[in-house]
Amino acid sequence: MTESASVAGTTGHAGDRDGTALPADPGRWLHDLVADLLPPMRSITGEGVRTTLRTVARALGPDVPLTVHEVPSGTPVLDWTVPREWNVGSARLIGPDGKTVVDAADNPLHLLGYSTPVRARMTLDELRPHLFSMPDRPDWVPYRTSYYNENWGFCLTDRHLGALPAGEYEVEIDTTLTDGSLTYGEIVLPGETSDEFLITTHTCHPAMANDNCSGIATATLLARALAAGPRRHTFRLLFIPGTIGSITWLARNRDTVGRIRHGLVLTGLGDRSDPTYKRSRRGDAAVDRAAAVALAETERPHRIVEFSPYGYDERQFCSPGFDLPVGRFGRGQHGEYPQYHTSADDLEFVTPESLADSFAILRRTIEICERDRTWRNTAPYGEPQLGRRGLYRAIGATMNRQAIEMGLLWVLNLADGTRSLLDIAERAGLPFDTVAEAADALAGVDLLAETGAGPGGATGG
Amino acid sequence: MTESASVAGTTGHAGDRDGTALPADPGRWLHDLVADLLPPMRSITGEGVRTTLRTVARALGPDVPLTVHEVPSGTPVLDWTVPREWNVGSARLIGPDGKTVVDAADNPLHLLGYSTPVRARMTLDELRPHLFSMPDRPDWVPYRTSYYNENWGFCLTDRHLGALPAGEYEVEIDTTLTDGSLTYGEIVLPGETSDEFLITTHTCHPAMANDNCSGIATATLLARALAAGPRRHTFRLLFIPGTIGSITWLARNRDTVGRIRHGLVLTGLGDRSDPTYKRSRRGDAAVDRAAAVALAETERPHRIVEFSPYGYDERQFCSPGFDLPVGRFGRGQHGEYPQYHTSADDLEFVTPESLADSFAILRRTIEICERDRTWRNTAPYGEPQLGRRGLYRAIGATMNRQAIEMGLLWVLNLADGTRSLLDIAERAGLPFDTVAEAADALAGVDLLAETGAGPGGATGG
Amino acid sequence: MTESASVAGTTGHAGDRDGTALPADPGRWLHDLVADLLPPMRSITGEGVRTTLRTVARALGPDVPLTVHEVPSGTPVLDWTVPREWNVGSARLIGPDGKTVVDAADNPLHLLGYSTPVRARMTLDELRPHLFSMPDRPDWVPYRTSYYNENWGFCLTDRHLGALPAGEYEVEIDTTLTDGSLTYGEIVLPGETSDEFLITTHTCHPAMANDNCSGIATATLLARALAAGPRRHTFRLLFIPGTIGSITWLARNRDTVGRIRHGLVLTGLGDRSDPTYKRSRRGDAAVDRAAAVALAETERPHRIVEFSPYGYDERQFCSPGFDLPVGRFGRGQHGEYPQYHTSADDLEFVTPESLADSFAILRRTIEICERDRTWRNTAPYGEPQLGRRGLYRAIGATMNRQAIEMGLLWVLNLADGTRSLLDIAERAGLPFDTVAEAADALAGVDLLAETGAGPGGATGG
Repeated sequence: MTESASVAGTTGHAGDRDGTALPADPGRWLHDLVADLLPPMRSITGEGVRTTLRTVARALGPDVPLTVHEVPSGTPVLDWTVPREWNVGSARLIGPDGKTVVDAADNPLHLLGYSTPVRARMTLDELRPHLFSMPDRPDWVPYRTSYYNENWGFCLTDRHLGALPAGEYEVEIDTTLTDGSLTYGEIVLPGETSDEFLITTHTCHPAMANDNCSGIATATLLARALAAGPRRHTFRLLFIPGTIGSITWLARNRDTVGRIRHGLVLTGLGDRSDPTYKRSRRGDAAVDRAAAVALAETERPHRIVEFSPYGYDERQFCSPGFDLPVGRFGRGQHGEYPQYHTSADDLEFVTPESLADSFAILRRTIEICERDRTWRNTAPYGEPQLGRRGLYRAIGATMNRQAIEMGLLWVLNLADGTRSLLDIAERAGLPFDTVAEAADALAGVDLLAETGAGPGGATGG
Repeated sequence: MTESASVAGTTGHAGDRDGTALPADPGRWLHDLVADLLPPMRSITGEGVRTTLRTVARALGPDVPLTVHEVPSGTPVLDWTVPREWNVGSARLIGPDGKTVVDAADNPLHLLGYSTPVRARMTLDELRPHLFSMPDRPDWVPYRTSYYNENWGFCLTDRHLGALPAGEYEVEIDTTLTDGSLTYGEIVLPGETSDEFLITTHTCHPAMANDNCSGIATATLLARALAAGPRRHTFRLLFIPGTIGSITWLARNRDTVGRIRHGLVLTGLGDRSDPTYKRSRRGDAAVDRAAAVALAETERPHRIVEFSPYGYDERQFCSPGFDLPVGRFGRGQHGEYPQYHTSADDLEFVTPESLADSFAILRRTIEICERDRTWRNTAPYGEPQLGRRGLYRAIGATMNRQAIEMGLLWVLNLADGTRSLLDIAERAGLPFDTVAEAADALAGVDLLAETGAGPGGATGG
Repeated sequence: MTESASVAGTTGHAGDRDGTALPADPGRWLHDLVADLLPPMRSITGEGVRTTLRTVARALGPDVPLTVHEVPSGTPVLDWTVPREWNVGSARLIGPDGKTVVDAADNPLHLLGYSTPVRARMTLDELRPHLFSMPDRPDWVPYRTSYYNENWGFCLTDRHLGALPAGEYEVEIDTTLTDGSLTYGEIVLPGETSDEFLITTHTCHPAMANDNCSGIATATLLARALAAGPRRHTFRLLFIPGTIGSITWLARNRDTVGRIRHGLVLTGLGDRSDPTYKRSRRGDAAVDRAAAVALAETERPHRIVEFSPYGYDERQFCSPGFDLPVGRFGRGQHGEYPQYHTSADDLEFVTPESLADSFAILRRTIEICERDRTWRNTAPYGEPQLGRRGLYRAIGATMNRQAIEMGLLWVLNLADGTRSLLDIAERAGLPFDTVAEAADALAGVDLLAETGAGPGGATGG
């Protein structure tokens, strides 16, 4: 049995975040929300996820309903099973002198994720296999988990570990690992068509600002922005635990994922690295090309990387059975910055400027997918007479017509029902908006008709 | 109702141009014909076109019949309508002192094309919207038209315009714009097959040597050359007004354009720029590849540009409904040389050398299309024994056989009914003629059979 | 009528070559065998071929049966006919002074291959058209044949030719050209499947170490190595005269050549040039890609050249009717080294090191083809849970998992029944063995199933 509950926040986020209007300073708004999301102990299940979704609901404001799903432990999901729910009372390591040496209340990262409950007394040497540190980064606490093998442990700085005196230690891990449920949030914003644009972000990482409070915050603001405007696609935003969350969602929505025309996994959007798009497994999906256009339009350094089956939830969406047109957007990639999965991924590590830049590129990518269509020229034999339709300059002359009219001519020439506007812009070497505006003008005088299928990606399945 | 009249000139062009034999100096012959074609007032309809076609017929000589078609004003043609016929009696602008300031009798470019008849008196300021000049080229007269919006005007040098005194001017434009017909010329030279090679050039531009007296002259000489020799393809040469002419021809021949296997639009063949080929919309039609080979063989600088829906009549032939394998050949492209569409496109601007060079490249392009075929090896299992067929050297030795025999081996290996000789030459890295000669030798001993369809391009539709 | 005889050598080759175990020093073993193969007069038919095959049989040892086929003269084979059998008693040219000037007993190359019997007396000038030398290499004897045009002649050094005195010469060519048979050897080593790997080498060249005693020797040692181990493919090794031999074999096996999934023609494996692979006509056959991987893995200079219809027996296997996935492996290519087809292609020209290197690259190419398969992920929806199958590390952490697990993830992501392991390794940028080992591990827990067809190349026909 699965519970779902609609948890529309009663008010929007504090400060300038009331209503559905966009904040005046999106970067600051996002950074503030990252700060709100940071504190709670959080894992793939448990109260931390629910607390997180309540923060998201408040930030969404009253007009954007977030549905919270609870999927019981033990539910078979694809090749996996929903795990037991993990909750943390307290977790402390007490030294030979009776003083607390490590306390998860100070930093959720101190506790190995999914640690089983333990009350034990042991020597430092017995304890060592349960203590995790980073010798090469002696002042940072690493992030470690053991979801599917029962274990327990503490993470601490290597400097701290090295200073621990010999003697007897008291382990007091007061956790529960019991049948409960996996919790995720979902927002559906209906559009003109049932074709879907999926935006998904993982909610399971504790106490790290970039990975992935930045993703949760950005998805929240995208939902507000999308809710405020007209939508051709139906937008679906997921706030789910990594891996098991996307697997659970895919298992529960297996029959309808075919509606997904475009998708984006959001991770690590606030660090100072260049914006980075990772292509879908298909490599040439409309969202892959739209993201490339959006990044090129910034005229700043950026990266587009090929799909690989390593990373975040794109691994599941792009598994060969689903093969969905889902790419990933972020900045620094997992593992390539030293702060990755450590206590150094903190509020200083993410900046309002980077968050705002990521948000803008994502909005532009979405806008391009919204505008992209596959049209058919209704007068394909010869050029139609644009002049009598008011689309052509009166006095036939030399060259400056080109800037104005090339968009019209290219769209007429290539809109044969097989090429999207992205295809046409690429072939013509024209800005996407020029081509899209030309198409709107031509459609306005019935020189274009939409082809059977919806957006360009429709045949990509 | 449409009139057609066969207007075979009774004698060939002057000088060395009698009979169908090629002139000894094609560049000089072409330049002389450009000079003959230059003077008359000419537009998309009217007596100027008929005068032009009479000049063409004379230059063709008695053995190459030119059919002149007249299509009545008001005839619906694709998305357009054949316009009223425009004729010019005289067109003068008379200054405040009663003297003629601008007179179309001096240069047809002085009159805005398709100017409506006007008799009016007005101040210079009232007149200004009807006066066109080129501020950045103060000594040149621009070429301007207003076919589909009723208007009138004069074109003059900017220096002249700047010197016009204030005062009252007399406009005397004695034109007629009445129901009549659109006139075009057509030559059909039947070949062994009904597959067609289309050559087309526009006849509507007045008083400019390169654009497009050079095209008209070159098409004329190509017709003479093609008429004199054997032809595999049926050749069709069109002398038509730009845009409306090709639209009219396409509308009248809509059911048979599928026979067109190759096509070339000829424009601007006499200037000093490098020869330039613009690919068909298909981009890899046989004519596109043949032109590339012909240009490469010159071992001189040249350009091959991708299709774009801007330019000359290739816009119509390559509209998506027709999508014919028609490229464009010329030298300087429209708009890229300053003399384009001005009075500076004169007899000095075109040279006999450039005209002769363009003519030679066109003949070679046509020759390659004529020779290109798609053969099938009749003994495809193992190599056939060339020795007993007299195609192989007697003493098996080392290396110099390669130059002789590689053509035979490549054709045998690749002639599987799907690859044309152009394909094979490209894959083999051999000259086209080497491959074509090898194919002839192999066909001569029945080691090759022609595939069902005609030329290589037959399946390209 | 065709005779076949199984001629299993009673003992292996001398020295360390007994049994089927590989020799300790393959390069030395191969060089010794080249020396054994060098002496006899040899051509496309005759006793020389039989002597050669007896040497091969001895070197194969008792456990690798070589079948010797005799195909009667006059048998029609594809477009050819099996020629008369040529045998040589003696061949001498006697000078004006009665002394022997040239004697084929000194070097088989002295006699033009397939020389007809001659007893004649003639002047030096009458003789000249029958004397072949290399003016640019005055100390080398060229190799010349005249298989299909009756002729006779002597080959000698240019220095020798220049020193011949005028006068009457005695020609004593004691050859027979009579109905007999064409002889070739064949080894079949059955594998788990009937899909075949063809290895072929020509046996017709006399007295030249690289071309092609090196090929015969290498094929012999490959047969020993393959016979000693497990085999997925059925291996077929051919020792055949060039051109007419492969044509004869193809004619006799026309109905079953479709079983050939991979093939290699072996020529010139012992010279000091870089190893060179020539692609099959298909260009992307599995063997083409496997050879490229094997060569890249050497991390030493090598060449991969595109198919051309000139060369050795790949000409026949890759004729368009057969179009088999057969490439060619060797070092220096025919005609590109001066020693090619001369007496300078001797035992000094080939080295044990080059022979051993060629042998190692061939074994690796074969091994890759043996391991390459096209698998299908049996759990393609989402990632399967590798952890519970013991394929995943227990503690989820940072980066060093990549080296271990990327192979598993890439195979799962791409094994969709259309991509071979070679495809996956190439796309993933991983070593072939990493991908193959990952596939073995996944198949071991039933996460992969083999697709219908056998090896990757199965659909390439």
